[in-house]
Amino acid sequence: MHELRKHIALEIHEVPTGTAVFDWIIPREWNIRDAYIKNARGERVVDFEKSNLHVMSYSVPVRQRISLGELKDHLYTLPGQPDLIPYRTSYYREGWAFCMAHRQFEDLRDETYDVLIDSSLTEGYLTYGEYLHKGETQDEFLFSAHICHPSLANDNCSGVALLTYLAERMAGLETRYSYRFLFAPGTIGAITWLARNENNSQRIKHGLVVSMVGDPGGPTYKRSRRGNAMIDRAIGHVLQHSGLQPVVLDFFPYGYDERQYCSPGFDLPVGLFQRSRFGEIPQYHTSADNLDFIRPEHLIESYRLIAQTLDVIENDAIYVNLLPKCEPQLGRRGLYGAVGGDKDAAAANMAMLWILNLADGAHSLLDIAQRAELPFEVIRKAAEQLRESGLLSASRVER
Amino acid sequence: MHELRKHIALEIHEVPTGTAVFDWIIPREWNIRDAYIKNARGERVVDFEKSNLHVMSYSVPVRQRISLGELKDHLYTLPGQPDLIPYRTSYYREGWAFCMAHRQFEDLRDETYDVLIDSSLTEGYLTYGEYLHKGETQDEFLFSAHICHPSLANDNCSGVALLTYLAERMAGLETRYSYRFLFAPGTIGAITWLARNENNSQRIKHGLVVSMVGDPGGPTYKRSRRGNAMIDRAIGHVLQHSGLQPVVLDFFPYGYDERQYCSPGFDLPVGLFQRSRFGEIPQYHTSADNLDFIRPEHLIESYRLIAQTLDVIENDAIYVNLLPKCEPQLGRRGLYGAVGGDKDAAAANMAMLWILNLADGAHSLLDIAQRAELPFEVIRKAAEQLRESGLLSASRVER
Amino acid sequence: MHELRKHIALEIHEVPTGTAVFDWIIPREWNIRDAYIKNARGERVVDFEKSNLHVMSYSVPVRQRISLGELKDHLYTLPGQPDLIPYRTSYYREGWAFCMAHRQFEDLRDETYDVLIDSSLTEGYLTYGEYLHKGETQDEFLFSAHICHPSLANDNCSGVALLTYLAERMAGLETRYSYRFLFAPGTIGAITWLARNENNSQRIKHGLVVSMVGDPGGPTYKRSRRGNAMIDRAIGHVLQHSGLQPVVLDFFPYGYDERQYCSPGFDLPVGLFQRSRFGEIPQYHTSADNLDFIRPEHLIESYRLIAQTLDVIENDAIYVNLLPKCEPQLGRRGLYGAVGGDKDAAAANMAMLWILNLADGAHSLLDIAQRAELPFEVIRKAAEQLRESGLLSASRVER
Repeated sequence: MHELRKHIALEIHEVPTGTAVFDWIIPREWNIRDAYIKNARGERVVDFEKSNLHVMSYSVPVRQRISLGELKDHLYTLPGQPDLIPYRTSYYREGWAFCMAHRQFEDLRDETYDVLIDSSLTEGYLTYGEYLHKGETQDEFLFSAHICHPSLANDNCSGVALLTYLAERMAGLETRYSYRFLFAPGTIGAITWLARNENNSQRIKHGLVVSMVGDPGGPTYKRSRRGNAMIDRAIGHVLQHSGLQPVVLDFFPYGYDERQYCSPGFDLPVGLFQRSRFGEIPQYHTSADNLDFIRPEHLIESYRLIAQTLDVIENDAIYVNLLPKCEPQLGRRGLYGAVGGDKDAAAANMAMLWILNLADGAHSLLDIAQRAELPFEVIRKAAEQLRESGLLSASRVER
Repeated sequence: MHELRKHIALEIHEVPTGTAVFDWIIPREWNIRDAYIKNARGERVVDFEKSNLHVMSYSVPVRQRISLGELKDHLYTLPGQPDLIPYRTSYYREGWAFCMAHRQFEDLRDETYDVLIDSSLTEGYLTYGEYLHKGETQDEFLFSAHICHPSLANDNCSGVALLTYLAERMAGLETRYSYRFLFAPGTIGAITWLARNENNSQRIKHGLVVSMVGDPGGPTYKRSRRGNAMIDRAIGHVLQHSGLQPVVLDFFPYGYDERQYCSPGFDLPVGLFQRSRFGEIPQYHTSADNLDFIRPEHLIESYRLIAQTLDVIENDAIYVNLLPKCEPQLGRRGLYGAVGGDKDAAAANMAMLWILNLADGAHSLLDIAQRAELPFEVIRKAAEQLRESGLLSASRVER
Repeated sequence: MHELRKHIALEIHEVPTGTAVFDWIIPREWNIRDAYIKNARGERVVDFEKSNLHVMSYSVPVRQRISLGELKDHLYTLPGQPDLIPYRTSYYREGWAFCMAHRQFEDLRDETYDVLIDSSLTEGYLTYGEYLHKGETQDEFLFSAHICHPSLANDNCSGVALLTYLAERMAGLETRYSYRFLFAPGTIGAITWLARNENNSQRIKHGLVVSMVGDPGGPTYKRSRRGNAMIDRAIGHVLQHSGLQPVVLDFFPYGYDERQYCSPGFDLPVGLFQRSRFGEIPQYHTSADNLDFIRPEHLIESYRLIAQTLDVIENDAIYVNLLPKCEPQLGRRGLYGAVGGDKDAAAANMAMLWILNLADGAHSLLDIAQRAELPFEVIRKAAEQLRESGLLSASRVER
């Protein structure tokens, strides 16, 4: 949070332990200072200082001397990926555990170990950050990133970074929508925000959960529960014209915080944007999800795809052809190549012809772009030219 | 019929010759005692005693000495399947004929033959049997099997046997729907039943014509005329998850008694369940459709598929999520694995998550099963657990 | 026009230069007597007498002595098709140009040339021809062919010829619809007609632009803007059962006069019928589009497809099954093979069974043909038999 506040005027919210948020209760706050497993010679064979993944998140404090057999009941490893430390949490069941590489686990001798987890579970706060870019209207676009995974680079330091950068770049720009950026722990954070903003949640006209946006995979988009919300159509269009091999999935009730936004009592038009699909790459929830795994070029491409999506959302509108009977004479207005019969002359004019043909009050620019199989940008620019020539209504009309 | 009455309390109906049933008239009753073709040496070269397929059904009586040339006008064979006796009928055009193996036909010498068909066409009755299993409501599920094919095992002794067994097993069970089992001659039998039950036919909410259910082919389902009736969706779902290679066909106006149930004046939601498609196997309507052709394991599988379909029809309902805002905390209720981050943990919980997400009053359990691509049984059981935990409405709601 | 009047009573319309038609103005009338390019030796290296494609249509008069360098700014060639003369026009931008084979162009010496275009652009008329075949109703079928391409055989002498022949054959026939045949210059001609017939244009219930119907390609059909108008369905059905490899395209706002008929202010149900797609064959808009390129057999096939489409349009109607409860007894009426059980007996009766099953007041004959996957002709004839037997309503009912 403090890092983010260097870039954007993040508002920090703290919600006390014990607060009811719908069916949930804000749990005690977990903090940890140190943790280790020492062998009989006093050597730290597992050391929290070296990687904070070594301790299962939300582990209760422990200070004990135990046998290897007992210790094993509190160890997580990945036998199939023996060099990686798994990432494990246990928010809602009391317990403690260490996570370690399987190769190291196999080297443990049958001796007595000293284990320490110097953690505390105390009355405290759930903390989330919020930043609002105000637009022309109170209608909102919600961006949401989870911040609860320690040390994982792609999941989700990448999402936090991308949204911070986006919010920073947006400052000073005039936009049609207001943009809300939410940085909160997964699940309980989104639930808490929804519980505290229930009345205002219907202002959210579009939204994206952003996670895992720095790896080389994807891009992947998971539709909102509605399936054909504007966000679904806009990002689907952008991905279709991206030149990449996007994967677009229908909503399913497992994943990130879209689960909460898309619960039936809210049913908000919020999708999930990722590169690789969560759970489908070997680095997922392991120590291999580190800074070597993510790359600037992938973050930039993710940023670009989201920015293009916002371009669609901001600019889509219905304009009407003011001369709808027969085609207007484009040539006279300098909008058309005047020499007929050329085999190639047509291509450049197709965007205008499509707009004039479909701008009947029933089709938005995105509708037209989809029908014409042209990028939104091309249609948007042609529509500007037509508006300047007086052939298209100057302002948006309601559907 | 008498055989069936050993198993179920079949009600026998007799409708007199001459009775008008819609556009049809109950024909005279046909009975046959003996029939043969004797050669010049008095040997029975074709003998009704050996197979009742040898005489075209509804043949008028005949006793004649005729030449081979004349005889040939009254013989049916299958040149492409020279060892099989075809099955032929002529209900509505007066005539007589014998059916025989083509190989035997080719051996007939050019001599004089004595032919006898000791049949009678007299004022009598059309006979059909009916059995009603009463359920909680008067809404009915209609099962219909034709009983008019002599000696054909798959078409349709198999269907009669399966339905008798089903009716017998259902006795004593409490069901939501009432189940009507109809055993009647093809076409005229269904028409007669509809003519005599026209007012009550609208009680039929679902139905299946059952025929050819003992062979190794299929399974095949032909949709009702409506195409997306509950029976079409339910059996389609069961077949999709059967692990078999089912064929599902749109309705077409040729086949079995679904033709009558699905005539436009009734348009009842009745489909046709078979294994092989009628007319598409070499045994169809020949002496090869015998007890060697059908097998218990195929009958059992057919029974199981129908029983699973009834499970869907009986149990499909709309329940509503009582905590629709954000996900309820399943872990607290023992409904969810509490250790997050495990790559496999999710799978087992998907059914519950799908139900909670879609139980918004607009989706039934079958809708949810289809959307989740999970078997109905899995969704039904998960819904029970959720109801017991108080997360889902205890009783059905109307759509 | 004069050639056409030998066949049909074409009504000629002349609209004066300067007349406003929607966003356009009737331009001056262009006439040309002679044109050439003479080399230094006085030889006509390009001669209008040899091909009227040599002069860009609507070229302003010119008489000049110029260098090769200057001349090149006024020459069109096709480097990729060096033996062909391109066809070029410039209706709305003043200028002049010659069109020539690229091979000949490459032989031009660097010397001085005399160029002459003895054309005139004067106050005159736009001329179009119209022929109306009156049917039972004032509802119209519009046929439209452009007449503006000099010397191009397929594009569109072929379309003009086909429509003239069709109009001639239709004379004396009683039809349900009135048929309007329009022969006019491309774009401005259709716009002029629409401007002068705006109120009556809504009489047009179906229509086809006909062009390029003599070559061996296609057939191609481009749907009307509505996409599922009766004309789209009828011709789609005919093409589907044609045994050819038709291409059916959704509407797009480039092409022939369907652009005007399908502009949003009119949105008439008018499609485009062609063989090859315009612009997709090497002969398109070149001197290779000559009488060698088109063939009688292709013209005949095009004619046949259009005639079959009119058969659908003229005869499609809703009739209702007068005995909708169960199937009527076809055998008694001589409409059905009476010997059951024959594997092949059914096929011939399928058309009748489909009609009886679907003639419920909601399905027209074309609907039934499509559902039954049978040619319209087969369904139409079966419906006649059923009407004669009293099973189907004698007259059409409204949907």
